Amino acid sequence: MSVSVSPLAPKFLPEMPAIRGLRMATAAAGIKYKNRNDVLLMVFDQPATVAGVFTRSKCPSAPVDFCRANLPHGQARVVVVNSGNANAFTGLKGKAATELTAKSAAAAVGCEANEVYLASTGVIGEPLDASKFAGVLGDMHSAAAPDFWVEAAKAIMTTDTYPKVATRTAEIGGVTVMINGIAKGAGMIAPDMATMLSFVATDADIDASVLQQLLSAGVEPSFNSVTVDSDTSTSDTLMLFATGAAAADGQAKVTLVDDPALEGFRAALNDLLKDLALQVVRDGEGARKMVEITVTGAENDLAAKRIALSIANSPLVKTAVAGEDANWGRIVMAVGKSGEMADRDKLAIWFGEVRVAVDGERDPDYSEAAATAVMQREDIPVRVELGIGEGKATVWTCDLTKEYVAINGDYRS
Amino acid sequence: MSVSVSPLAPKFLPEMPAIRGLRMATAAAGIKYKNRNDVLLMVFDQPATVAGVFTRSKCPSAPVDFCRANLPHGQARVVVVNSGNANAFTGLKGKAATELTAKSAAAAVGCEANEVYLASTGVIGEPLDASKFAGVLGDMHSAAAPDFWVEAAKAIMTTDTYPKVATRTAEIGGVTVMINGIAKGAGMIAPDMATMLSFVATDADIDASVLQQLLSAGVEPSFNSVTVDSDTSTSDTLMLFATGAAAADGQAKVTLVDDPALEGFRAALNDLLKDLALQVVRDGEGARKMVEITVTGAENDLAAKRIALSIANSPLVKTAVAGEDANWGRIVMAVGKSGEMADRDKLAIWFGEVRVAVDGERDPDYSEAAATAVMQREDIPVRVELGIGEGKATVWTCDLTKEYVAINGDYRS
Repeated sequence: MSVSVSPLAPKFLPEMPAIRGLRMATAAAGIKYKNRNDVLLMVFDQPATVAGVFTRSKCPSAPVDFCRANLPHGQARVVVVNSGNANAFTGLKGKAATELTAKSAAAAVGCEANEVYLASTGVIGEPLDASKFAGVLGDMHSAAAPDFWVEAAKAIMTTDTYPKVATRTAEIGGVTVMINGIAKGAGMIAPDMATMLSFVATDADIDASVLQQLLSAGVEPSFNSVTVDSDTSTSDTLMLFATGAAAADGQAKVTLVDDPALEGFRAALNDLLKDLALQVVRDGEGARKMVEITVTGAENDLAAKRIALSIANSPLVKTAVAGEDANWGRIVMAVGKSGEMADRDKLAIWFGEVRVAVDGERDPDYSEAAATAVMQREDIPVRVELGIGEGKATVWTCDLTKEYVAINGDYRS
Repeated sequence: MSVSVSPLAPKFLPEMPAIRGLRMATAAAGIKYKNRNDVLLMVFDQPATVAGVFTRSKCPSAPVDFCRANLPHGQARVVVVNSGNANAFTGLKGKAATELTAKSAAAAVGCEANEVYLASTGVIGEPLDASKFAGVLGDMHSAAAPDFWVEAAKAIMTTDTYPKVATRTAEIGGVTVMINGIAKGAGMIAPDMATMLSFVATDADIDASVLQQLLSAGVEPSFNSVTVDSDTSTSDTLMLFATGAAAADGQAKVTLVDDPALEGFRAALNDLLKDLALQVVRDGEGARKMVEITVTGAENDLAAKRIALSIANSPLVKTAVAGEDANWGRIVMAVGKSGEMADRDKLAIWFGEVRVAVDGERDPDYSEAAATAVMQREDIPVRVELGIGEGKATVWTCDLTKEYVAINGDYRS
């Protein structure tokens, strides 16, 4: 397995401020890894409002089932996340493990089990020994500190080569609020949803139902628009928590999703979600190049997105990118196989600013050298104009390299 | 690019008898390759009945358009196939190229343009210089010989590492008839349909509409049940020709698809189509292992097939196979992402005869050693029982190796 950091990693980590009302701690519980932290505790001083979006897999993990069941309650006091074991496809043992973990967490923090949220990531099908949490959660609660975001991001990594953090500020009714987020994920990444795990928190005071609407809308152009390998995890979890601490500064609680005071917050949240989602792609297993695929002129936006994902998930497109080969014929292939309306003789394709095909054939001014120069970049924009309608979409993916095969050929061992 | 023969190749080529009424020749027209044959001519002494199944790509190649337009005529005198250039996404030039090729072929053989069938395979998006055919087709027609199947299969290869041929005999009303076929394809292989190019011929006397019904039904459990990389070509073409020469032995022409006399022929044809389709998978680019995926107990047969293909197309499943890793958690993931009805807690999974999971968790008698021993085989059977209904399907795929990435990272260069 590769241990070097992805060449596409951000060049520096942002300064991560504290989010008032939230403290965190990490510990090494020995779930699977040796000599590294594998448990994250997030604890809210007061009940936070909570929203969540989860995998659409028909075989979700036990923690996903657990979170879904708690979500209608709308309040969170504690979040426990572990890496190394996904507690997925673990049958009744998996359910028992979530119950035991929730009980330990509730006892450590002093809350109800329905204020607990859980997430697990790692190997599927191995029973998770939840008794390991009991021994560490009490100490973690005592040690929890507000300024701990990067360590938190590190504790939830699996095949990730770098911790993924992002921060934004916004104003709600003249009061400044913060939004921080962490994410992990590098493989088994595809829409519905694309992240493995991501946790976002703000000190804004926002109603749970508003939070849910913001998150459900925000996930579409971010985590649901990235793909590494078209494989959807059983464990995908994205959660958003609002501590409400900004109420102390006079921020009036937001209770309506169309409240004009939310505009800045919404934009900042969406920007942060996109930042985190792109960091996941940039850490795609074995990735050496990032590809931004924009489809315009489709029948409608949904058709555009399906075509963009057909391109983004094509092994032949992704290996061509790995080989720095301006093989636009494979883009045509991927458009054709999407099943969406396309008119071969109206298609145009660009690599970066270089138009390589127009009116259904190679551009008369095609320059192999110019196209290849784009393919040699680290970030490669691809655009496909269908010439049919107004639909458009952008998705992001990475190349498919020998390293991806190496990483995934012996992940369990 | 790899030049060694796939380790999964058949150990020997079958003896390929002649099909009465059909002669073939190959030539080096210099379409793209140097020093190898790249054109195949198939010529029928008398008009043969014809059936075809083509790619469902929305961006089909010019030869696919050409064949589709001729098919209603139902008669074939000549087939021209080239490798090296797919004549796909070549705009009006592509159409002109098919017309010029058809004209040259019709002149060489002495037939009408609507009795010509064309297929091209190779690079997409490069104009095809059809004038190169004009120089060779006349000589090819003179030289065409009945006993030429293996050479024919070689001439249409691109990234294939071995020629794919198959032969069967059957009886129709007591008269023995022959069926021969060739295929090429190693990448850009996925259903709708999976083959790149395949041409099958028989000396049986069968009506064109019956031939079409046989072929349309036969393609489902064969070429439409194999996948190498989920990528569907713009050029997929499967054609079936019947010379009718067996009429001389007293075979009564078959004009109804439910004629009981057809049963033996139908079975032999389906067996030959499956043989050719599996040869394509066994030559999957970079393939080192063949995987047969059977899904049982699904809601219905279509759901079973979708689940089987979700498994077969999963990069994580395919890399695990490459790594000889009995990672059945990824099978669960692929079942879950298919979107088809599944009950996590009723799932059971086998690698070969080793049951690895049952009732939604690891088999109590799970043996890593036994499961790994299956993964170390060249041919790996995987079975998933959903426990919901009666639907079942079997599909075939290969592993995803570093060699696949290498082959496709610089195919054009």
